[in-house]
Amino acid sequence: MRMVDLIDRKKNGKELTEEEIAYFIRGYVAGEIPDYQVSALLMAVCFQGMTSRELTQLTLEMAKSGEMMDLSAIHGCKVDKHSTGGVGDKTTLVIVPIVAACGGKVAKMSGRGLGFTGGTIDKLEAIPGFATQITKRRFFEIVNQAGASVMGQSGNITPADKKLYALRDVTATVDSIPLIASSVMSKKLAAGSDAILLDVTCGSGAFMQSREQAEELAEKMVGIGTDAGKKMTALITNMDVPLGNSVGNILEVKEAIEVLRGKGPEDTREICFSFAVEMLLLSGSGSREECEEKVKDAVESGAALRKLMEIVRLQGGDDSYIQEPERFPKAAYFYEVAAQTSGYVTSMDTKQCGIVSGMLGAGRETMDSELDYTAGLYICKKTGDKVSVGETLVTLYSNSYDRILAAEPVIRSAYKITGEKPEKQPLIYKRITG
Amino acid sequence: MRMVDLIDRKKNGKELTEEEIAYFIRGYVAGEIPDYQVSALLMAVCFQGMTSRELTQLTLEMAKSGEMMDLSAIHGCKVDKHSTGGVGDKTTLVIVPIVAACGGKVAKMSGRGLGFTGGTIDKLEAIPGFATQITKRRFFEIVNQAGASVMGQSGNITPADKKLYALRDVTATVDSIPLIASSVMSKKLAAGSDAILLDVTCGSGAFMQSREQAEELAEKMVGIGTDAGKKMTALITNMDVPLGNSVGNILEVKEAIEVLRGKGPEDTREICFSFAVEMLLLSGSGSREECEEKVKDAVESGAALRKLMEIVRLQGGDDSYIQEPERFPKAAYFYEVAAQTSGYVTSMDTKQCGIVSGMLGAGRETMDSELDYTAGLYICKKTGDKVSVGETLVTLYSNSYDRILAAEPVIRSAYKITGEKPEKQPLIYKRITG
Repeated sequence: MRMVDLIDRKKNGKELTEEEIAYFIRGYVAGEIPDYQVSALLMAVCFQGMTSRELTQLTLEMAKSGEMMDLSAIHGCKVDKHSTGGVGDKTTLVIVPIVAACGGKVAKMSGRGLGFTGGTIDKLEAIPGFATQITKRRFFEIVNQAGASVMGQSGNITPADKKLYALRDVTATVDSIPLIASSVMSKKLAAGSDAILLDVTCGSGAFMQSREQAEELAEKMVGIGTDAGKKMTALITNMDVPLGNSVGNILEVKEAIEVLRGKGPEDTREICFSFAVEMLLLSGSGSREECEEKVKDAVESGAALRKLMEIVRLQGGDDSYIQEPERFPKAAYFYEVAAQTSGYVTSMDTKQCGIVSGMLGAGRETMDSELDYTAGLYICKKTGDKVSVGETLVTLYSNSYDRILAAEPVIRSAYKITGEKPEKQPLIYKRITG
Repeated sequence: MRMVDLIDRKKNGKELTEEEIAYFIRGYVAGEIPDYQVSALLMAVCFQGMTSRELTQLTLEMAKSGEMMDLSAIHGCKVDKHSTGGVGDKTTLVIVPIVAACGGKVAKMSGRGLGFTGGTIDKLEAIPGFATQITKRRFFEIVNQAGASVMGQSGNITPADKKLYALRDVTATVDSIPLIASSVMSKKLAAGSDAILLDVTCGSGAFMQSREQAEELAEKMVGIGTDAGKKMTALITNMDVPLGNSVGNILEVKEAIEVLRGKGPEDTREICFSFAVEMLLLSGSGSREECEEKVKDAVESGAALRKLMEIVRLQGGDDSYIQEPERFPKAAYFYEVAAQTSGYVTSMDTKQCGIVSGMLGAGRETMDSELDYTAGLYICKKTGDKVSVGETLVTLYSNSYDRILAAEPVIRSAYKITGEKPEKQPLIYKRITG
């Protein structure tokens, strides 16, 4: 078998065989197939796509390239959740304790933020003492005891994806839907859960700009997971507007706590409750009505908030911060960005909001950047809201005033204010199941 | 400027700027841009093509990546010729002396054969004593004295093309028409002639399988040359059948000598005379009628054959072989492949004929292979010919009988003999000028 023939076949729209895909992934990880052949193949995939058979085989090979988590030490149906990335997305912090409080099992591996999207691991580490680098044994113990745990991604998960992603990043082959689908799903298959909820975001703050693209990606990922024997649901969600009011690590933890108290922004609440219901449905916890009832009860009774405190404690964190969120440190500086025109917020460049959060210190430019956990945005006016001159659009928080000064014009440019009230858009566009 | 952005632009069908193309080629040759980014760009070009502006700029950058031959020491209009490759193509051996005998100037750099096509340099080196590795000074002297010289390609011509070609070869990006056009034309622009005749072959013995592809390639190459200030003509020629009767180094030299004597196979004669006329037209040697008259006279008077002898002498060769071709060594073995059915030769796999010539020892598998100058094929029956059982289709020559035994079934499979007489195809399909 020769790699050049595989490239040629894909270039000419032929379907690669199982053997060819195994040869490519194993040879690449082993360092026997050079980057320049792989990048040519990836570019050919950008133009020719992949059949669902190819895609499942590619994803399974990628998953098998490293450690496959064996979650059999955890009793019951393990349910995982993955988002394709958003701004202000603190849903994991809310839904993991809700699902666990309702009897579901969540053994979740999460990543750090990079670029304009935040990462769950960063948000959890904003809670003093919270350890995300725990052993697998401890991880299993916590899930068995509390029903849920979130740990940082282990070093040896899907090395094929790491190598491919690094190459895609420098060869303009990132935005291929089959390559995104196999990248996401290889990690999810290696992570070992039985059921997976996918949050496929679309809009100005998401990787997928259009609903069509998001649906295509969701269908491909659900197809891969189903072929691999997983229970799958995907929700296509609206990321044209940041989720909730807060963007930034501590700010988002605080919003998550509010939502667990039955308060907080309506959109965050609605999305989190929908996700929790879907995860319970996937883990076989009853009918939709029953699952909805369970989620409502878990929040109203305070069980979900207590579950978060329990998980925080088990992972070495100080749960008094969850009980009294006002204890969290505050940024040294804040700045209220006031509207200069009156009208309606017609649209927001949500990616810009994420970039601004990074500029303020909440995100990292490289994997070595230090985070300012207090930094971020509190968004007062969102798409559809009426504003008058002088009203605060957004409050910027940072420990560096220079960063606030640099961020201010950027966040202004993210707002479009006109005389016309825009139509209200749904939060969830579509549900796709396997 | 970042290479990843260039790749992304090309992938999305955008036109690259002059600066971007210069950045890419210079960076690649300097070793600053890695192979894996270049192969991704080349694959994107395979799908998105290149505009004529991009193509001309790419070709000029590639030409300028190494030594640009300065032919100003040679008086008059220098006319070059390039073939995209064929089987039995000995035209250079015939047309260079004819054009020089008619007063044209040909300062030609040629290559060695590799794969299934032969190379002019190999054929010339089959003439005892003929030196193809001569200095530029001597090359200019010979052209000024005799009107023509053919030398091997200098080491420092178009390093960008060498590096790109090696990468294309292992990344399935060889068969892109813009990439072929820029590769060929970069070498021709660097070679420094004022006018260029392109022989764009098509059919079973050519790189371009269809007339449409060949015409597209010819148009692109003529466009590049014209944009670069060269006088250009391209002929689209039929390579569905080997040219003439002989394939192999000494066999082809002998056929070339026959044609210079006004004899030899009709197709070789017609093609060579047409090429010579086109080259004289390009070098401004008069009207088509005048040029045709000159070519006819040069052959009939023996001036063209004497010119070949003169060039051979000036390049250190023994011209007695040209005068008495029977002096050339003969292969130790020959084998007549007889027809096993009667009918008409309906078609020939011409590439297979080239491969058989290589198998017999006339070609090389790697650049280090030793050639058997006596090896090759003498083709008695070609497409359109009537054959009876037992008649010789082709005679195989080699200094190795084992090679003949291996070649015999392959050459048989190259013939298709049926009851139907095929329609006669023209030798030249089309003429394209700049």
